[in-house]
Amino acid sequence: MSHNTFGHLFRVTTFGESHGPALGCVVDGCPPGVELAEDDLQPYLDQRKPGQSRHTTQRKESDRVRILSGVFEGVTTGTPIGLMIENEDQRSKDYSEIKDKFRPGHADYTYIAKYGRRDYRGGGRSSARETAMRVAAGGVARKVLGPDIVIRGAMVRMGEEQIDYANWDWDQVQQNPFFSPDASSVAGFETYLDGVRKAGSSVGAAVEVHASGVPAGWGAPIYGKLDAELAAAMMSINAVKGVEIGAGMEAARLTGEQNADEMRMDAGEPVFLSNNNGGVLGGISTGQDLIVRFSVKPTSSILTPRRTIDADGNETEISTKGRHDPCVGIRAVPIGEAMMACVLADQMLRHRAQCG
Amino acid sequence: MSHNTFGHLFRVTTFGESHGPALGCVVDGCPPGVELAEDDLQPYLDQRKPGQSRHTTQRKESDRVRILSGVFEGVTTGTPIGLMIENEDQRSKDYSEIKDKFRPGHADYTYIAKYGRRDYRGGGRSSARETAMRVAAGGVARKVLGPDIVIRGAMVRMGEEQIDYANWDWDQVQQNPFFSPDASSVAGFETYLDGVRKAGSSVGAAVEVHASGVPAGWGAPIYGKLDAELAAAMMSINAVKGVEIGAGMEAARLTGEQNADEMRMDAGEPVFLSNNNGGVLGGISTGQDLIVRFSVKPTSSILTPRRTIDADGNETEISTKGRHDPCVGIRAVPIGEAMMACVLADQMLRHRAQCG
Amino acid sequence: MSHNTFGHLFRVTTFGESHGPALGCVVDGCPPGVELAEDDLQPYLDQRKPGQSRHTTQRKESDRVRILSGVFEGVTTGTPIGLMIENEDQRSKDYSEIKDKFRPGHADYTYIAKYGRRDYRGGGRSSARETAMRVAAGGVARKVLGPDIVIRGAMVRMGEEQIDYANWDWDQVQQNPFFSPDASSVAGFETYLDGVRKAGSSVGAAVEVHASGVPAGWGAPIYGKLDAELAAAMMSINAVKGVEIGAGMEAARLTGEQNADEMRMDAGEPVFLSNNNGGVLGGISTGQDLIVRFSVKPTSSILTPRRTIDADGNETEISTKGRHDPCVGIRAVPIGEAMMACVLADQMLRHRAQCG
Amino acid sequence: MSHNTFGHLFRVTTFGESHGPALGCVVDGCPPGVELAEDDLQPYLDQRKPGQSRHTTQRKESDRVRILSGVFEGVTTGTPIGLMIENEDQRSKDYSEIKDKFRPGHADYTYIAKYGRRDYRGGGRSSARETAMRVAAGGVARKVLGPDIVIRGAMVRMGEEQIDYANWDWDQVQQNPFFSPDASSVAGFETYLDGVRKAGSSVGAAVEVHASGVPAGWGAPIYGKLDAELAAAMMSINAVKGVEIGAGMEAARLTGEQNADEMRMDAGEPVFLSNNNGGVLGGISTGQDLIVRFSVKPTSSILTPRRTIDADGNETEISTKGRHDPCVGIRAVPIGEAMMACVLADQMLRHRAQCG
Repeated sequence: MSHNTFGHLFRVTTFGESHGPALGCVVDGCPPGVELAEDDLQPYLDQRKPGQSRHTTQRKESDRVRILSGVFEGVTTGTPIGLMIENEDQRSKDYSEIKDKFRPGHADYTYIAKYGRRDYRGGGRSSARETAMRVAAGGVARKVLGPDIVIRGAMVRMGEEQIDYANWDWDQVQQNPFFSPDASSVAGFETYLDGVRKAGSSVGAAVEVHASGVPAGWGAPIYGKLDAELAAAMMSINAVKGVEIGAGMEAARLTGEQNADEMRMDAGEPVFLSNNNGGVLGGISTGQDLIVRFSVKPTSSILTPRRTIDADGNETEISTKGRHDPCVGIRAVPIGEAMMACVLADQMLRHRAQCG
Repeated sequence: MSHNTFGHLFRVTTFGESHGPALGCVVDGCPPGVELAEDDLQPYLDQRKPGQSRHTTQRKESDRVRILSGVFEGVTTGTPIGLMIENEDQRSKDYSEIKDKFRPGHADYTYIAKYGRRDYRGGGRSSARETAMRVAAGGVARKVLGPDIVIRGAMVRMGEEQIDYANWDWDQVQQNPFFSPDASSVAGFETYLDGVRKAGSSVGAAVEVHASGVPAGWGAPIYGKLDAELAAAMMSINAVKGVEIGAGMEAARLTGEQNADEMRMDAGEPVFLSNNNGGVLGGISTGQDLIVRFSVKPTSSILTPRRTIDADGNETEISTKGRHDPCVGIRAVPIGEAMMACVLADQMLRHRAQCG
Repeated sequence: MSHNTFGHLFRVTTFGESHGPALGCVVDGCPPGVELAEDDLQPYLDQRKPGQSRHTTQRKESDRVRILSGVFEGVTTGTPIGLMIENEDQRSKDYSEIKDKFRPGHADYTYIAKYGRRDYRGGGRSSARETAMRVAAGGVARKVLGPDIVIRGAMVRMGEEQIDYANWDWDQVQQNPFFSPDASSVAGFETYLDGVRKAGSSVGAAVEVHASGVPAGWGAPIYGKLDAELAAAMMSINAVKGVEIGAGMEAARLTGEQNADEMRMDAGEPVFLSNNNGGVLGGISTGQDLIVRFSVKPTSSILTPRRTIDADGNETEISTKGRHDPCVGIRAVPIGEAMMACVLADQMLRHRAQCG
Repeated sequence: MSHNTFGHLFRVTTFGESHGPALGCVVDGCPPGVELAEDDLQPYLDQRKPGQSRHTTQRKESDRVRILSGVFEGVTTGTPIGLMIENEDQRSKDYSEIKDKFRPGHADYTYIAKYGRRDYRGGGRSSARETAMRVAAGGVARKVLGPDIVIRGAMVRMGEEQIDYANWDWDQVQQNPFFSPDASSVAGFETYLDGVRKAGSSVGAAVEVHASGVPAGWGAPIYGKLDAELAAAMMSINAVKGVEIGAGMEAARLTGEQNADEMRMDAGEPVFLSNNNGGVLGGISTGQDLIVRFSVKPTSSILTPRRTIDADGNETEISTKGRHDPCVGIRAVPIGEAMMACVLADQMLRHRAQCG
């Protein structure tokens, strides 16, 4: 991963600011002969787009993606796929509050520290709006991976509310505005988040992404490990502060006996009796489900006044009004899925390159 | 990160198997004019090397590193630095147990799945022995970073035993065989690990690495984020299953008010009143301490018999004898420090490139 | 260089087909604080665009470039710069002649061999239309390099007609439709090319690009040599078949005495008494003018019937009608300049990274 | 290509100075299951090594290559292959002449300009001794490519002496100390070079490398073109100043009719009636022989005194004694072959990745 490009053979390069004319990306390295249309990508963008419920920002964006190149007669040609989404709701607003003050917990300060300037309109490049292009690219990656690899994400925690893993049901995820796999958790999430929103506050969340159908053998030791690249991919999502594979941080508590995912044969195929390793051993897939979990910190744009400084070094306070997600973790679900898809498409091509 | 190379401008490429003739690496991109000698690297290797206490593997390796190129008259020349450690203790042993059986939780199975063959002697390339070269490269990175950037690691948990953060004292870390910063934790760790070892078992651990003195502004959005690269770097260490920056997975529980690291001025400089973000915002350093935490799963080579299969697909059991670390997490401390150093040296050069 | 991206720190990624909706590119890694507007780029695009004289293709394209991101309040922000040119003259035409037949000397056959399909409209991705984005990116690179580095190209040969180097005058280059630096050559080029065009034929050319003001010390041995990257950059331009630095292929004829660019001091600065090495020694700039020369083969789309095969493996003939450059080498001049600018901007940043 | 690594999937990283303890390289990305032994590499190194005839430097090096990793039981494992050659003839000599003076035409001056220091012993990193590792890596690449792809090089010109292409006979190349494919040229080369050597002078050369058996479809537009990467690879060899593909610089003189490599069918396969394009169209292989030609400038270390300056900026003269090749172009033949092999192995893997 480097700067605004990620991936080695399936490579995604994005550009665009929150309130500029457009967002875009180039997906390079896609195999030829893959059927691809804008309609294949739009459903994922619709899941991520704002304003789908009262629980996300009310910015209005249709997020219609256009394919500008790389597809001919409905099929990829092997040349780079240019994708673009025009920004529609660049609401003319008063930026005086955030133009010169740094929101605590936001990238306002660090962009200035690095570049000496920043596009402060809606967060500019540091806005999660950039992730729309990841979701579009992830849609291409899914087509490359084919229907046998199924990538699904879910929200498993929001602040002090969490799901009951015993109730996990993938069919529930699309039935509620929280991408929760546990129907019994929804009412709690709803009440909780209404309270957060009305208080002008925000809250963190945890998201889990699974990939099924990944064959054993993908990944590349030592520094191209499948789990290392998944960790980078998820940590590169705005506001993510922790990434776990399988048992994750809990692995520190386990003994060797507990952690060992024992193996048996079933119908002529190796099977594992548990999945503490989250589908990866030595950086290479085991054939089990890949399981990645990540935390998303609370939105830093909150109504509650916080102490900060301004660009001139004066102490001051800031209170951020406007259309912000009370829990950005919700919309992180389709983004996490997209990053999983892109990492896997890349590793699939790399595996094919070296091992035929 | 890709395959056996990591870094973009400060690039490290490693090679070597556990029981081959030698391990080596090439450190490319090092600035010229840096004073460097083998004695600058050896102390870090000595911290990682086996057999330093009864709590680590008893394999005997002096791990003497040789500089083969890139240094002239005691100073780096800007050309690639070749480093090599010869393997000494390639004990002729009976590999029949692990040659054809897969240790649960180990990369044995996945290497076969990927490559169709593997060097089974001591784990071959998947052995943590590879990390000796990371530690050597990390020593070079520290010289590049200079004395103002201080990188220190500590073990904070082993199985159910953990430190009391209130007792944190960096001076303690080198005073005990666990790299514990809490003197009061040492007896507990000792008793606990003696029990684990005598039971032929193993246990996980958690390690925390801090970097002080990093200026605000290092890092590179969007896919070259400082925290994303730290996550990949730590996750690429053998047996690591989770990585956290600052509040880490706990960020999912916080509200916006709790998470906001408020800012004030102190002696003309911006200061933060807390460090939930672990020194990174928007992928760019804030000037605070960088704080990374990671979990290390228990060694998969244990004496307790576990169910597994062999290369021919027969169900069997395995019990691994021989010289194994009961808690590989201990020796992961200098490795984590080295990865932090390499990531920072790379980001320093990248920042200088773009921003002067 | 890899696939559709080139450069390491100043990175250009392009997309777009000849007859698709748009061409675009992403320029990543640009330093912040560089004044940049669309008007800075347009003059270079105007030099390359078709239809400027009767000597180039009559396709009508205004080639207006739009900046979609990375610039705020007239200055670069350090984030990726998205650039786009919409295709206007996607003339609906009859492609039956080239759809199924391979033009000898064209990429028609090899795209099919590689990808199994191709966008045959106007050459698709293999069209020199892609180079419009290189020229736009080169404009950004020039701004990064600053006014002290002057990059200029000229056509020095067309078929059997060539310039007299003794008459070289940079001021002439913009005074004639051939970018010739020798006023006395223009009438000859004109007559010659009129004949070629009327015959339905085409002809090759040679182009020379100079960069003045490059300080000594840029470049990176061993595989990142300045001349190696210039060679790749020029060879990547459509139809280029040879690249020379300084004495070029003639170096094979020289003795050590002839080739040695002797050194003296002048006003306290090292000076060279000749420039056989074209401003590069050991892959690193000497401070002299960089001199690169490349050949451009004749356009493969000619009216004269040529023997070929079709996609079904039948022997046939092809005669290409339509709007083609009789000498694509002319428009290669601004493209060569742009590639020089991009390579230098990248090497400038890389040098600053390693050597401060 | 970047710095001391080249290739994308078949990646070679070299290190080592002319008079340091050893040269080495890491070959990463090699497919598993390739039979490989040191004896597979040594013949190529023996062709390049000094002292094979009176026409090359008399430095004594056995250039024995050792495989340090990546091969187990005679077969590659897919892990990085470490290769090393120990320097033997680090003759203690008087470097006072070249320590502080810059040889005109040599990298002495530019290394100082870039790095502020240099290892002056035998040219340090800028010595062609580095190319021994390219030749070793090329041997690995040939094994990856398999026996159907045949890579052969020949010297076609030395100063004013050149071969007669009509006499080309590959069987002659190994029969004379010049790698000449034309038996009738050998006496002339011999007499000519004896004169050059006795005069304390040196002379340039031109080398041509062919690859047969490359299937149509390898290569990657736009910036990963097969010919662009070959150009960079050859230009990265010490002393190379020009690179041509097929007709090369002469393409500037051709008409479209002359340049078109017409196509017919032969036994159900496409065939070309000429090969002006050197086996590449649009950056992708055509299935014809790949033909690359490059010039090598004369050795800059000559006995004839040349005007130069010293490190303190004083004007002076230099006359280089010692063991230098009067024509480095001779030993460039196996080096050019090795670079061809490495570029092709990389492109083979990249093609397999994207196109299956």
